[in-house]
Amino acid sequence: MSNSLNPVLEQIETNFEGSIERLQSFLQIPSISTNPEFKTEVRRCAEHVTNELSAIGLDATLHDTIGHPMVVATDDSAGPDAPRVLYYGHYDVQPVEPLDEWEHEPFAGVVVDGPRGKRFVARGAADDKGQLMTFIEAIRAWKEVHGSLPVRVVILLEGEEESGSESLVPFLTEHKEELQADTCIVCDTSMWDVDTPAITSRLRGIVYVEATLHGPSHDLHSGGYGGAVVNPANALAKILGQLHDEEGRIQIEGFYDDVQEVSAEQVAQWNNLGDADALTLEGSGAKATFGEKGYSTLERLWSRPTCDINGLLAGYTGEGAKTVIGAKAMAKISCRLVAHQKPESIVNALFAFLESRTPVGCHWEFKNFGASPAIAVPTESPWLAAASEALSTIFPNPAVLIGTGGSIPVVGEFQEILGIDTVMVGFSLDDDLIHAPNEKFEVSCFHRGILSQAAILEAYANITP
Amino acid sequence: MSNSLNPVLEQIETNFEGSIERLQSFLQIPSISTNPEFKTEVRRCAEHVTNELSAIGLDATLHDTIGHPMVVATDDSAGPDAPRVLYYGHYDVQPVEPLDEWEHEPFAGVVVDGPRGKRFVARGAADDKGQLMTFIEAIRAWKEVHGSLPVRVVILLEGEEESGSESLVPFLTEHKEELQADTCIVCDTSMWDVDTPAITSRLRGIVYVEATLHGPSHDLHSGGYGGAVVNPANALAKILGQLHDEEGRIQIEGFYDDVQEVSAEQVAQWNNLGDADALTLEGSGAKATFGEKGYSTLERLWSRPTCDINGLLAGYTGEGAKTVIGAKAMAKISCRLVAHQKPESIVNALFAFLESRTPVGCHWEFKNFGASPAIAVPTESPWLAAASEALSTIFPNPAVLIGTGGSIPVVGEFQEILGIDTVMVGFSLDDDLIHAPNEKFEVSCFHRGILSQAAILEAYANITP
Repeated sequence: MSNSLNPVLEQIETNFEGSIERLQSFLQIPSISTNPEFKTEVRRCAEHVTNELSAIGLDATLHDTIGHPMVVATDDSAGPDAPRVLYYGHYDVQPVEPLDEWEHEPFAGVVVDGPRGKRFVARGAADDKGQLMTFIEAIRAWKEVHGSLPVRVVILLEGEEESGSESLVPFLTEHKEELQADTCIVCDTSMWDVDTPAITSRLRGIVYVEATLHGPSHDLHSGGYGGAVVNPANALAKILGQLHDEEGRIQIEGFYDDVQEVSAEQVAQWNNLGDADALTLEGSGAKATFGEKGYSTLERLWSRPTCDINGLLAGYTGEGAKTVIGAKAMAKISCRLVAHQKPESIVNALFAFLESRTPVGCHWEFKNFGASPAIAVPTESPWLAAASEALSTIFPNPAVLIGTGGSIPVVGEFQEILGIDTVMVGFSLDDDLIHAPNEKFEVSCFHRGILSQAAILEAYANITP
Repeated sequence: MSNSLNPVLEQIETNFEGSIERLQSFLQIPSISTNPEFKTEVRRCAEHVTNELSAIGLDATLHDTIGHPMVVATDDSAGPDAPRVLYYGHYDVQPVEPLDEWEHEPFAGVVVDGPRGKRFVARGAADDKGQLMTFIEAIRAWKEVHGSLPVRVVILLEGEEESGSESLVPFLTEHKEELQADTCIVCDTSMWDVDTPAITSRLRGIVYVEATLHGPSHDLHSGGYGGAVVNPANALAKILGQLHDEEGRIQIEGFYDDVQEVSAEQVAQWNNLGDADALTLEGSGAKATFGEKGYSTLERLWSRPTCDINGLLAGYTGEGAKTVIGAKAMAKISCRLVAHQKPESIVNALFAFLESRTPVGCHWEFKNFGASPAIAVPTESPWLAAASEALSTIFPNPAVLIGTGGSIPVVGEFQEILGIDTVMVGFSLDDDLIHAPNEKFEVSCFHRGILSQAAILEAYANITP
């Protein structure tokens, strides 16, 4: 390690208790972007992080949008010839329901003991507050030790990642110059395991819709009308039950038209990473893996599209029995997409699948919650190689190249609007319960994450863009 | 009409405004029996009606049970040789959700204008507070005019009809002597149409279960796990989608084993009653009838069993998008049964249907909310003939004999425990929105119902048991 980096790493060690406390304060702000009742809290969270970035010495600004604020912070102390790096994170979080399944209040920001040592348990701990704090804390340490950074930096923090990112594209377009950079780091991905860092090169895309089947004009007594008119809940189940065949293949017409098989070499590399089935079962608490026949778990997660029911609501769902035929039945449905699938075509095909099965006398109400294509980032770039090497100096095991089943639409927007390729490096684990009750982030991941970000800053200083 | 009845009918006319106000007060008590939060209100409702019956001059008692109270009121002023008539009704009501679909507060007890004149709009207006008030108000008028009743009367009012009637069988068993009667009137059924009264001779039975399919140990991110482990919502839809074939036949093994076809004469009589499809569409607001192929709407409602999903809940059901794979998915399912089907066998067959389709690594949690067999009452009894004749003197059209798709388990319990056959005569209409938002009861039905009950009281006095 160089003479510049070593004191920074020491500073991170010395100040790590402070880093923990700062993340705790950040986690205590309930920045739930999808629920309008929390709008003020989301803004308070944006103000909080803007103030933090200013305090570190960055030029930080909160930008209002039609939705939640964007935070932009820059530091050009490395001088005009240094590479410029764009960092992206999001300070908003998912809703917390079902609240009664949380073992700790989701916005208390607690640190508790776990099987791998201390952990943060809070909504947003891993997704994405704990992750984005790794680069903020690394930058803080560099500034504290050297008064400057080894590269130029622009940080973009979004408050709408969990609620559709409606302001993102207009904002990127409007602030294209200010956000210009040579490379980008998105810190919203996972490691392979607790000792093995990873760079993610494949992301699935997503479409997400809500479909409500309407039948009778009002809820009916199931005695008085059962068997005489359509029950939308029965019909919805019948229709959704046809989404997959017995092999787990999706039956939406044209769904696989643009899907390409990945190479045998790629599959072999993934399957050599380790026991993905064991990790999946451990992370999910499922008792068996399940899915499309003929593909391994990693192939299914990283290279095969899905169609999942994310929500179902019909009739009476409270305690006890109510003999009702609901007037309508609702499903939230999303498809994870792989490279070359066109989101708009998939949404249309899904709607057509449903429409073509509409029972007589019924009709659908559709909502579309946005779509983004899958991403494959170039794996031969010097930025990716340098980040990989930096990670390997901090962790016990060298960094590996992985895919992810999730979607990070911003990576596509950066490529399309800003012309910047992203290096996706993150420090969460598959069992971090992202989007679920008891979301957590290992303190050791936070710790090594900050050290890694400090090392990447230095590694990037040596690259000529 | 006799000299005894005429002044009673006149008294009902004179006091009808008072009858309306008394029903309004009764409707203003939110006696929702299925929700423990309303336990005090259910009891208050029982006290209210007990006081009403005492005020009329009956010997009325509130009996506590392990659930909600039973109210029993007797009047033996007709002397020991007069026939004794058991009246049954229930003072509890269904929940009101979805509350935002009500045009009037469900417990305000309003009377508003409608296409057929004034109507009560309230939860319980037709089911069953408005109905049971027809015999209470008829008894009131008889007592006011004559100081006595033409027959001996015992009234049983239950507070658990909408929540499983757990206290009913123990109570009937314990109070068998006090409840002994020569015949019974249950007033929880419908007319054929607004001008045509009806006596119901066939009731469907019911089984009602809740089935929850458990998969992963916690909610998962649909990106991180979609395609790798089972999604209980997908699996539930696939399983429930198999409950019916394309002809609307239920696919549960053995489901139809004990079902008998009704006679061609019976079917012809039903199909001659009128345009049942039009009434069904009008009452339901559905745009088409729907159901098992090969049967008319009335055959399906009165002589064919059903399997209906009454509730569905899985994953995220709030506003917007949440990319979650829920750890579990729940369905409430009921089957309406016809004569000779055995409720316990049907519940077991339904559970077996679900169990046999359990995805690898998943398990079911089952709840059983009670069961009751279908009922066919004797149509040749003098009580039924007398009631039919009395109804025909009050309404423009003569009374008709019908079935109903609903279930009234108490009719079976009266037969089994007390040895009493029931005459089911009620004054609600198919479009009364029972169990749904904006439940209503026509003031004209209430009016003619009271007059009819007064006439039945006299008609019954002339029968020698």
